Order: sequence, then C-alpha cells, then structure tokens
Amino acid sequence: MKITILTLFPQMFKGFVEESIIKRAIEKEVVEVKVVDIRDYSLNKHRHVDDTPCGGGAGMVLQVDVCHRAIKDNTNLNSHIVMMTPQGIKYDQKVAQRLAKEEDLVLLCGHYEGFDERIRDYVTEEISIGDYVLTGGEIPAMALADSVIRLLDHAIKEESHLDDSFSTGLLEYPQYTRPIEYENKKVPEVLLNGNHKEIKLFRKKEALRRTYLKRPDLLKDYNFSSEDKKLLDEIIKEEK
Amino acid sequence: MKITILTLFPQMFKGFVEESIIKRAIEKEVVEVKVVDIRDYSLNKHRHVDDTPCGGGAGMVLQVDVCHRAIKDNTNLNSHIVMMTPQGIKYDQKVAQRLAKEEDLVLLCGHYEGFDERIRDYVTEEISIGDYVLTGGEIPAMALADSVIRLLDHAIKEESHLDDSFSTGLLEYPQYTRPIEYENKKVPEVLLNGNHKEIKLFRKKEALRRTYLKRPDLLKDYNFSSEDKKLLDEIIKEEK
Repeated sequence: MKITILTLFPQMFKGFVEESIIKRAIEKEVVEVKVVDIRDYSLNKHRHVDDTPCGGGAGMVLQVDVCHRAIKDNTNLNSHIVMMTPQGIKYDQKVAQRLAKEEDLVLLCGHYEGFDERIRDYVTEEISIGDYVLTGGEIPAMALADSVIRLLDHAIKEESHLDDSFSTGLLEYPQYTRPIEYENKKVPEVLLNGNHKEIKLFRKKEALRRTYLKRPDLLKDYNFSSEDKKLLDEIIKEEK
Repeated sequence: MKITILTLFPQMFKGFVEESIIKRAIEKEVVEVKVVDIRDYSLNKHRHVDDTPCGGGAGMVLQVDVCHRAIKDNTNLNSHIVMMTPQGIKYDQKVAQRLAKEEDLVLLCGHYEGFDERIRDYVTEEISIGDYVLTGGEIPAMALADSVIRLLDHAIKEESHLDDSFSTGLLEYPQYTRPIEYENKKVPEVLLNGNHKEIKLFRKKEALRRTYLKRPDLLKDYNFSSEDKKLLDEIIKEEK
C-alpha cells in the first residue's frame, strides 16, 4: 500500500515515520509513506495557502485551488482520497479494515480553523477520528495511518490481532506479567496454573465482564455463543 | 499548565512539540510539555520494560513496576494522571474542557499490545480517543494534548473557538475564501453582499443543516432558540 499525506506541517510526521512499527513496516516494504507539503502548490511568492473568510469572521481559510493542485499531482484514478475533518464519518475499526484494502490511500489534513467548502468536491470521503477539536488534520491522519498500517503489518502475529479490543467485538481481557506480586497486588492464580482451558475461560469471561461494565453498547452487535450467554448471566449476577 | 508524557517512544513527539500552535503555546509559556522515556525506569541492564503474558499468548506486556516508578517520579499530589487506552471513557470536547482546567496533566501511553492490569491502580482515569486499535498510546496522547493546549492557547481568538464544530453543539458552517469562482464552483452570493445579518442567518442555517444531515445525534443535546426551530423546520422541508 502507498499512503500519501498532504499537509501544511510535514515536519509533524517525522517521529511517526521514523519510530516504532511504522518504521519497521516501511523497511519491510509493507507500506510506502509519502509526506507532501501543500505549500509546494501555492502560486503565491510567499507560499500562502489560505485567505480570509468570505463574509467575514475570525481565522484563515485553506484555499480550494491550492489543495486541488496538491491532490491532482499526487493521485491517480485508483486513489482513495480521505479528508480528515471533524464533520466526516466516525472512524472505527471497521473503517480501518475497509481502508486497509486500498492500494493508494491519500490523506488530506485540513486546517481545522477552516477550509474552503469546495475542497470537499475533490475527495472520496471525509473521516473524523472523534468529537473533539484539534488544531489540524495531522494527528487524525497519523491515527488513521497507524491503525491501517498495523493491520497490514505481517510483523504482528495474526493471533495478536484477533484478541485486540474491538476486533473481537469485546474489550480486551486483562493482561499480567512479572512481577507476580507487586505492592500486594497479585497476578490471578488461574493464569499461573498452566491449565489452558481454564485460562481461556477466565479471559473470555473477563473480556465479557469489562465490556458489560465499561462499554455495554458494544454488546448489542456482539455475536454470542451459548457459552458466552452463560458467562454473561454469571457476570450480571456477580456485579449486582 | 504542565503536560508530562510518559512513553516508550519519546522521539515520536518531536514533530508535535516543534511544529504549529503547540510550539507557539510552549514559547508563550501557556504550557510546558515534558516527554519522559519509560525505559529510563527499567532496572534491567537491557532497559527491558515488558515481559511475556502470564497464562501464555502472543505479544509482550508492559510491566507494572517500571510504569509505577515512572509515574511516581513525575507526579505530585495535584497530578491528574491519564492512561491512554482503548478501554477508557470516550474522549470528546467536554472531556477536553474539563482537562484544560488541570494544572499538572500526566499522560501515560500504553503499549496497545498489552500492559499489566495492575497499572490501572496508579492512574486517575483512562481515556480512549475512539473505537479503533492503534500501535500505542502516543498518537492518542498527542490528540488529547493538542485539543487541550488549543483551548488554553490565547493565541487563538476567542470568537474562533466559539464557532468550532462541537463547541457550539453543531457542526461548523461552510467556509469559503478566494478564488470567488473555481472550476465553475462559486462562493454563495450571500457571503459577498456584506449584509452581516443575512450572513449570520445563512451560517446558522447551514450549520444546522449539516448537523441535521450528517450528525442528527448531536441535535438531541442542542439548546434550540425559537429562531433555530424555525430554521430547522425549513431545512427539513427543503431536504425532503
């Protein structure tokens, strides 16, 4: 996959592409990440890319012609162009899985202060990472790219993916590692006895329990087995 | 405000603190941002911070003792310690406004692959930026810090804040700037006629319209004036 990021702040992505599994995925050629400075497409000698809003008001508005030139120069007919904006569809793991199938993903990071409405006509879709206001689309583009690249990266074992929060439809079960005891807090006995059937059951039940307690909304879309139903009944009694 | 970020990937924050309004806010001493490497608190000569999961399974689990030492060394009684995890409460603009009142905010970035459950006992609260799986808590910490610093930063004019998506309870109205005509797409006439009353009404109506079309869920919490109600009735008829 190729991911092209169109941004006014290319330097913000330095740490992102040079660290962690993103770097590893790039080195393994799982993904190619290209960061493009929108200012390179300004025709203004001062490299301006924004202007005051028509009709008045505070802030500056990103110009449609500059963005359109940047898009045209970095896309082809197969490109899937995503604009990062708080007005887009809500990003979630299902959208991540859908985008992971694209071959040429282009992420346009808007100024959140304002962009010319007509820019919308040149993108495939608009995505929001959540109901909060950020200074720009750069952090949302990182979040989107990170979650998509993570799905592509064969360096992460498949079984690890399957246990993730949201991938199973439940929150993740609690994890423990050494030290076995820390400040009087012990690792649950069941995880130390080596009985894999009991461990599996414990983890399933605790994943169900925390989803029930913290995110009951996720349970409505969850595909319950008969064992799951029994476990949930036990949990409801225990938590009363 | 002081924001301390505890992370395994301190280099990821380089672009974040050196670019854009965050840099400006730091220079203006609106905020102090400190990035701490959790590995500095490993007692292991190889600076290991994680170990295999008790009970078996894929991935490595971040250790409670290492994290606890990092937290203790970077907090005081007034610190508000947030752990970035997909299992936390959903982050939104209201949470951002609440956190903006803190004086000492500490953001703990977990490995999303897994962290020892007992770490939860040492944090004030857990926050999730959305229902998608990332490789770590670093991008969520940036999103949280960015939205909070943005609220603090007096460099952004107050009126600009008031018009933001979510701040008013509605999505933002469409913005336009020069060129007035681009590829046969024109700026709406009303924004060019200089009639401020008409411009205000147009913007209110379009903010209501796009909220109605894209995010009707936001309207249930919206405080309607009688003018708003009239506008919404018009919109519903127009969009039928």
